[in-house]
Amino acid sequence: MRALDIIIKKRSGQQLTKEELVHLINGYVAGEIPEYQISAWLMAVFFQGMTPEETKVLTEIMIASGDVFDLTGLSGPFVDKHSTGGVGDKVSLILAPLAASLGVQIPMMSGRSLGHTGGTLDKLESIPGYSTAMDQPRFREIIGSCGFAMTGQSREIVPADRLLYALRDATGTVESIPLITGSILSKKFAEGADALVFDVKTGPGAFMKTQEQARNLAQSLVATGRQLGKTVVAVLTRMDAPLGTMVGNFLEVEESIACLQGEGWEAQRTPQGQLVYTGPSADLMEVTIRLTAWMLVAGGIAGDVTDAEDRCLSALADGRAYQHFLDNVRLQGGDIQEMERRIGTWRAPIELRVSAPRAGVVASLDAFKVGMAGVYLGAGRNKTTDPVQPHVGVEVLIKPGTEVTRGQDIYRLWAQTQEQADEARTLLEKSIEIGDASTGVAGPSGMIVEELYDL
Amino acid sequence: MRALDIIIKKRSGQQLTKEELVHLINGYVAGEIPEYQISAWLMAVFFQGMTPEETKVLTEIMIASGDVFDLTGLSGPFVDKHSTGGVGDKVSLILAPLAASLGVQIPMMSGRSLGHTGGTLDKLESIPGYSTAMDQPRFREIIGSCGFAMTGQSREIVPADRLLYALRDATGTVESIPLITGSILSKKFAEGADALVFDVKTGPGAFMKTQEQARNLAQSLVATGRQLGKTVVAVLTRMDAPLGTMVGNFLEVEESIACLQGEGWEAQRTPQGQLVYTGPSADLMEVTIRLTAWMLVAGGIAGDVTDAEDRCLSALADGRAYQHFLDNVRLQGGDIQEMERRIGTWRAPIELRVSAPRAGVVASLDAFKVGMAGVYLGAGRNKTTDPVQPHVGVEVLIKPGTEVTRGQDIYRLWAQTQEQADEARTLLEKSIEIGDASTGVAGPSGMIVEELYDL
Repeated sequence: MRALDIIIKKRSGQQLTKEELVHLINGYVAGEIPEYQISAWLMAVFFQGMTPEETKVLTEIMIASGDVFDLTGLSGPFVDKHSTGGVGDKVSLILAPLAASLGVQIPMMSGRSLGHTGGTLDKLESIPGYSTAMDQPRFREIIGSCGFAMTGQSREIVPADRLLYALRDATGTVESIPLITGSILSKKFAEGADALVFDVKTGPGAFMKTQEQARNLAQSLVATGRQLGKTVVAVLTRMDAPLGTMVGNFLEVEESIACLQGEGWEAQRTPQGQLVYTGPSADLMEVTIRLTAWMLVAGGIAGDVTDAEDRCLSALADGRAYQHFLDNVRLQGGDIQEMERRIGTWRAPIELRVSAPRAGVVASLDAFKVGMAGVYLGAGRNKTTDPVQPHVGVEVLIKPGTEVTRGQDIYRLWAQTQEQADEARTLLEKSIEIGDASTGVAGPSGMIVEELYDL
Repeated sequence: MRALDIIIKKRSGQQLTKEELVHLINGYVAGEIPEYQISAWLMAVFFQGMTPEETKVLTEIMIASGDVFDLTGLSGPFVDKHSTGGVGDKVSLILAPLAASLGVQIPMMSGRSLGHTGGTLDKLESIPGYSTAMDQPRFREIIGSCGFAMTGQSREIVPADRLLYALRDATGTVESIPLITGSILSKKFAEGADALVFDVKTGPGAFMKTQEQARNLAQSLVATGRQLGKTVVAVLTRMDAPLGTMVGNFLEVEESIACLQGEGWEAQRTPQGQLVYTGPSADLMEVTIRLTAWMLVAGGIAGDVTDAEDRCLSALADGRAYQHFLDNVRLQGGDIQEMERRIGTWRAPIELRVSAPRAGVVASLDAFKVGMAGVYLGAGRNKTTDPVQPHVGVEVLIKPGTEVTRGQDIYRLWAQTQEQADEARTLLEKSIEIGDASTGVAGPSGMIVEELYDL
């Protein structure tokens, strides 16, 4: 079997066999097949795609390339959530304790911020004392104790993905649905999840800009999950404007705590049975509760999404969810008193406001530009080695769909230097689009675009 | 400028600028851009193609990556011929002395046999004493003396092509029209040619199996040549069956000498003015004379192809062409007496015949299979490091379109070992297709499929 023949076969649009994929991926990981052949194959996959069977086999080979997390001794069900990345996306910080408070066990391995999107680890580590570094026994122990643990990806998990991703990143082959599918699913299943709920973002602030791209990825995730014998739910959610009101590490922790305490949002069922959210964090909580509800269904805890949503609302109302959050903070080394003391006061020294250039209705706040403003401020990073700041960021004072007068403040930002503040302001100004009052713009609710599952 | 952005731009189907192509190719040659990025770009080019402007720029960058042959002191016109490779294709051995005898100067740099196709250098070196290795001054000197010199490619010429070709060969990106165009044209123009005539073979024995592929390559060669300000003519010729009667190194020298002496073929003009060829070497001479005629036209020596063809027939009839062949053999170290002494007698010890399995008309003799039989016999090579034998090969006794009786000999082969003879025979048997007498099969003539030029 020669790598060259496998490349040519894929280039010609044919389906590769399991043996061929094993030869290629394992040969690459073992250093026997050179990078230049793998990158040519990756580009051929970019153009020719992969069948569901090929994607499944690729995922299995990638899982088998490293360790699989051992959750022995825990009861489960183990359900994880994964987002394709957004701006102001602090869903995990609320969803994990909420799901845990309702009986799900969540072995959550998250990433760090990169480019315009934030990272769960960076946000949590802005809590004084909080650490996401831990060994496997401790990870298991924390899950056993409070239902969820938050850590980064272990280097022992799916080494094939680390190698392949670095090569894709350097060769323009990141944006391939089957390769993304294999990368995400292999990591999540190697981390011990039995079921997965995906938040596939779509819109200007998302990796997948169009609904069609997002749907293709969602379909691939669900179909490949099914091929692997696992339950996968994919929820397409809007990422036009930042989610919620805060963009920045500790700022997002603050908003998460408020939401867990029932502040900044309200939910009510319409006579038709639909949950309608209001308040500045309405969009965030609509997404969070829907995803958590799917985790309960995928984990076999609730029979349907409506029942699951109601359980979520109860656990939020009676403080169970917040208690799980506090338990986790304590278990992962966080100083709860110091955390609460800093709420509302821990801000970088330079504060600026960005206001409406004219009267009208806020038609859109471009999430990508707000995310990039966060990067300029030091809340995010351009390179993986850049440090991040906890107390810089942007507050969204007015959500899209709201009427504003000329000069009314839309954003507030906190920066460490005047230069960073000015750069961020310029970007934030560009992110604002004001429409006429007559334009029927969408409100902050209606975040769920589509739901795909195969239960 | 980043290689990654250039890859993504090409992947998205956009045209690259000159600056981008310079960055990529020169960066690669200088060792600054890694192979894995170049191979991803090559695969993107395979799928997205290149515009004529991009192909022209690529060719120019490749020419500039190394030396350009200096033909100062010679009068020209310098016209070269290049074939995409066939079986029994000894055209260069006849065409070069023929064109030289009519005033063209040919700085011919040829290749060696690889796979099922033969190589001009291997054929010439089967002449006792003949050497194709020489330095640049000697190359110039021989051209000045007999009008043409036959050598291999210098390592100093187009190093970018050597690097790119090796990478393409390992990554399944050989079969890309713009990459082939850049590779061929850069070498030929760096070798000093002002005008080029291409023999683009099409059919089962050719690199380009279909007429459409061959036409696409021909169009690209002509259009890119025009963009470079050079005259390029491309002639599509059939490569269904082996060209002429002999396949094998010294065997092909023998057939070439016979043809130069007017043996094995005849040509006559029809009342409509068309040249019709007959005899066992008719197909070979039809292709050779047509290509030579185009060289005279491209070099400005003859005004039209008909006039040029007539000049060719005269130079063959009065011995001028053969005299130029002998002059070249002498100048390149060949022993003419010994060469002539070996004609018809220098054969490997084992002789076998392959006969018609039934009566009928020879519908086809698959050139690819005959070429591979040649490889088994040691006339060609599988790897560039394999040695070749001068006195092994296949004689085609019956050309397609001829009626045969059951058991009538179609091939004769000479081998060094019984094992090689048996392997070759099996392949030759598979190459024969016998049709019914009623089937109107094409005769050996009608070799020219199409001619493309932009004079």
